[in-house]
Amino acid sequence: MRITGTFIDEISHDIPHQNWGRAEWDADFAHMKAVGIDTVIMIRSGYRRFITYPSLYLQQQLGCYAPPVDLVSLFLELADKYDMQFYFGLYDSGRYWDTGDMQAEIDVNRYVIDEVWKKYGHHKSFKGWYLSMEISRKTKGAIHAFKTLGLQCKEVSNGLPTFISPWIDGKKAVMAASATLSKEDVVSIQEHEKEWSEIFAGVQGAVDAVAFQDGHIDYHELPEFFAVNKKMADQFGMQCWTNAESFDRDMPIKFLPIKFEKLRLKLEAARAAGYDKAITFEFSHFMSPQSAYLQAGHLYNRYREYLQTL
Amino acid sequence: MRITGTFIDEISHDIPHQNWGRAEWDADFAHMKAVGIDTVIMIRSGYRRFITYPSLYLQQQLGCYAPPVDLVSLFLELADKYDMQFYFGLYDSGRYWDTGDMQAEIDVNRYVIDEVWKKYGHHKSFKGWYLSMEISRKTKGAIHAFKTLGLQCKEVSNGLPTFISPWIDGKKAVMAASATLSKEDVVSIQEHEKEWSEIFAGVQGAVDAVAFQDGHIDYHELPEFFAVNKKMADQFGMQCWTNAESFDRDMPIKFLPIKFEKLRLKLEAARAAGYDKAITFEFSHFMSPQSAYLQAGHLYNRYREYLQTL
Amino acid sequence: MRITGTFIDEISHDIPHQNWGRAEWDADFAHMKAVGIDTVIMIRSGYRRFITYPSLYLQQQLGCYAPPVDLVSLFLELADKYDMQFYFGLYDSGRYWDTGDMQAEIDVNRYVIDEVWKKYGHHKSFKGWYLSMEISRKTKGAIHAFKTLGLQCKEVSNGLPTFISPWIDGKKAVMAASATLSKEDVVSIQEHEKEWSEIFAGVQGAVDAVAFQDGHIDYHELPEFFAVNKKMADQFGMQCWTNAESFDRDMPIKFLPIKFEKLRLKLEAARAAGYDKAITFEFSHFMSPQSAYLQAGHLYNRYREYLQTL
Repeated sequence: MRITGTFIDEISHDIPHQNWGRAEWDADFAHMKAVGIDTVIMIRSGYRRFITYPSLYLQQQLGCYAPPVDLVSLFLELADKYDMQFYFGLYDSGRYWDTGDMQAEIDVNRYVIDEVWKKYGHHKSFKGWYLSMEISRKTKGAIHAFKTLGLQCKEVSNGLPTFISPWIDGKKAVMAASATLSKEDVVSIQEHEKEWSEIFAGVQGAVDAVAFQDGHIDYHELPEFFAVNKKMADQFGMQCWTNAESFDRDMPIKFLPIKFEKLRLKLEAARAAGYDKAITFEFSHFMSPQSAYLQAGHLYNRYREYLQTL
Repeated sequence: MRITGTFIDEISHDIPHQNWGRAEWDADFAHMKAVGIDTVIMIRSGYRRFITYPSLYLQQQLGCYAPPVDLVSLFLELADKYDMQFYFGLYDSGRYWDTGDMQAEIDVNRYVIDEVWKKYGHHKSFKGWYLSMEISRKTKGAIHAFKTLGLQCKEVSNGLPTFISPWIDGKKAVMAASATLSKEDVVSIQEHEKEWSEIFAGVQGAVDAVAFQDGHIDYHELPEFFAVNKKMADQFGMQCWTNAESFDRDMPIKFLPIKFEKLRLKLEAARAAGYDKAITFEFSHFMSPQSAYLQAGHLYNRYREYLQTL
Repeated sequence: MRITGTFIDEISHDIPHQNWGRAEWDADFAHMKAVGIDTVIMIRSGYRRFITYPSLYLQQQLGCYAPPVDLVSLFLELADKYDMQFYFGLYDSGRYWDTGDMQAEIDVNRYVIDEVWKKYGHHKSFKGWYLSMEISRKTKGAIHAFKTLGLQCKEVSNGLPTFISPWIDGKKAVMAASATLSKEDVVSIQEHEKEWSEIFAGVQGAVDAVAFQDGHIDYHELPEFFAVNKKMADQFGMQCWTNAESFDRDMPIKFLPIKFEKLRLKLEAARAAGYDKAITFEFSHFMSPQSAYLQAGHLYNRYREYLQTL
């Protein structure tokens, strides 16, 4: 299964920054294009005080820092140039994580959506929205937020598609900053189906695709979970994508590029389940020939060899 | 003291994969050869569901994944080409770690040993076996396993040599995935000698060499422990090798290449103790000029300068 | 604000070694010079048993290892060559950390200061001393040590300047080897001013500059803390430098190069507070074009672009 989309990890939570300028980003879009990537998703437009574009609103209302570069503009120009689709990831104020207050996230993003569409909506590559709140089954309060924000995104943009990328509450669902790699208390396939069916029902109409992160369960559990995900997506009229993580969750260094064999197992499982599209988190650190992690360049080569066998 | 052997870390427990293909492995064997390495040891032929060669038995009986490449074949061909000795590391099902059941490890490896010798034993470079279970003094149940498997290895292969690479239960004997770098409860030199004498007595005849890992004790403790190790090896008729770890156990990032000064201290201690051979864990990540960790290339240069002083 | 000084992290506590030889260090001094760095500070002349120069005293009295290279000599020669100022960092025996015994640190360094000045004081680039004990507000027993050692440094060297680089007890003041990135129990600006005023009063006359590490508080707290630091430095007649950390404290990998935007925020805050000088910890791993961390080379380029806007 070919990866046709990638997140762009600006602003990053937990992956150290590469400090690229325009020249490096331009080269990276070319590397993406060369392996068939047609979709780039800016993972979030801001996180707490760091933001990707000079929003007066966010600077004045939330004390955000003036960004040194307008990354939204940069990425849209490159997506225009390389004839790719750009998805805009919403802003994350951090308040939900601190206080459980999802309404604050909704309020600020209602403003952000309008501002961004006004400022950047004319780009031919602006093709969709990423509802950036990462949730799992225990975040059901998110249904209202996804519904509200997804509908607003579509409304302002003449119905451009939206998607979400939640995680499965499997054994590797541990915090990046924790010392452990796995946990004991994991979701069963039955609980997974029951709880996500509720969530899907709640966001229907506001979310066009769901791209579960594929790295929190063990490799031999992939077929079973992927089959259920596809069944639920079909039932609620969504596209079923896979978010194929290209970093390795099994190693003490959090995180370096994944072993190709593992990525292949995950892509093959998505193909077997009839998934609609594969995206990855993310190309520029973990699969790019110019990544600071040189393992990524070798992964790029192994992946190209794999493409020739498809 | 010159390093003349290296592990090849496939399948890896805790070192992120470099995603090399045949071309990179070929170049790495040349880099090894250039500094006098004549022995490569595949650290294990499989770990849990990931395996290095297409064993129908392991796939069918233990649910292992079909490997994308036959690494055993690849490494043997390269060892043939570069006139090096290849040691085959046994399979680790993970059951011992999970349940304490060593018999399961014995059973599966009895099959693996036969299969592998039949499949690959004709290679001129197939020169020995590595009993891959890493043990310390508290793993005495391992004596029976080492004895049984070591004898079988020798029997099927007309007496090819076997070796083990245990660790000393020193202050740095902490889990790779833990947040700490050291612990308080460490073995004394007297306990070490008493307990390992028992283990050596138990495996005599089935194990030809012991290569203690050199990274779990402090540098100033090396002479005392190395002297005892050599004395015990002599007493029980084994060769005494050192497994000179070329990664740094003293740093928060687990793990990057070691500072050359530390490696030199350890090699000098092994020379002073009259050790028979030095191997390392491992060349390709931590000492190779083409490693993804660029510090490794500098370590390679420092090590070459050191060789000129010997 | 331009960075005009950098630490050289030999001997390192927690940053993996790059294994550079003379050629790489020479090239690095040239890279430093090219961006306006005129001051190099050897962070410590030894830590526990590892030392940077062949001190018979430290080898015989404290069991230190004979160093493979005389780094003090190497760095002084390069500083001479590139017309830079070299600051010598005192020895850290580790006893204070283990037992709270600061007198031991004083005693050994009284010898080291004399020895080093006799051996290396003739270099034209030997321009100052770094009192290398890193302290925070809870280390008040350090006042006597700083006073004693600072005065001795100045006395033997005809009044060459001395400086210290303490940390602010903010939310990111956690151990490098811990799994966490932040803590709850942090110092208030009032406590900070009260406690550091006491310390500054105690070391007055023996310490010429204070370079607080800038990475332990949040970015939006910088202006307030920096203003207080400058006020205290003025009050007690010290220069106020910033130690602009060029590694990222917000990421699970401890540590890789910082995101340029963060470094810029910190430098701008130091400029706004009227600081006298900016140094960094440290150039060679985190900002150098030849660093093993390739993100550092990109940071170098972003920083050069920034210099052109000043």
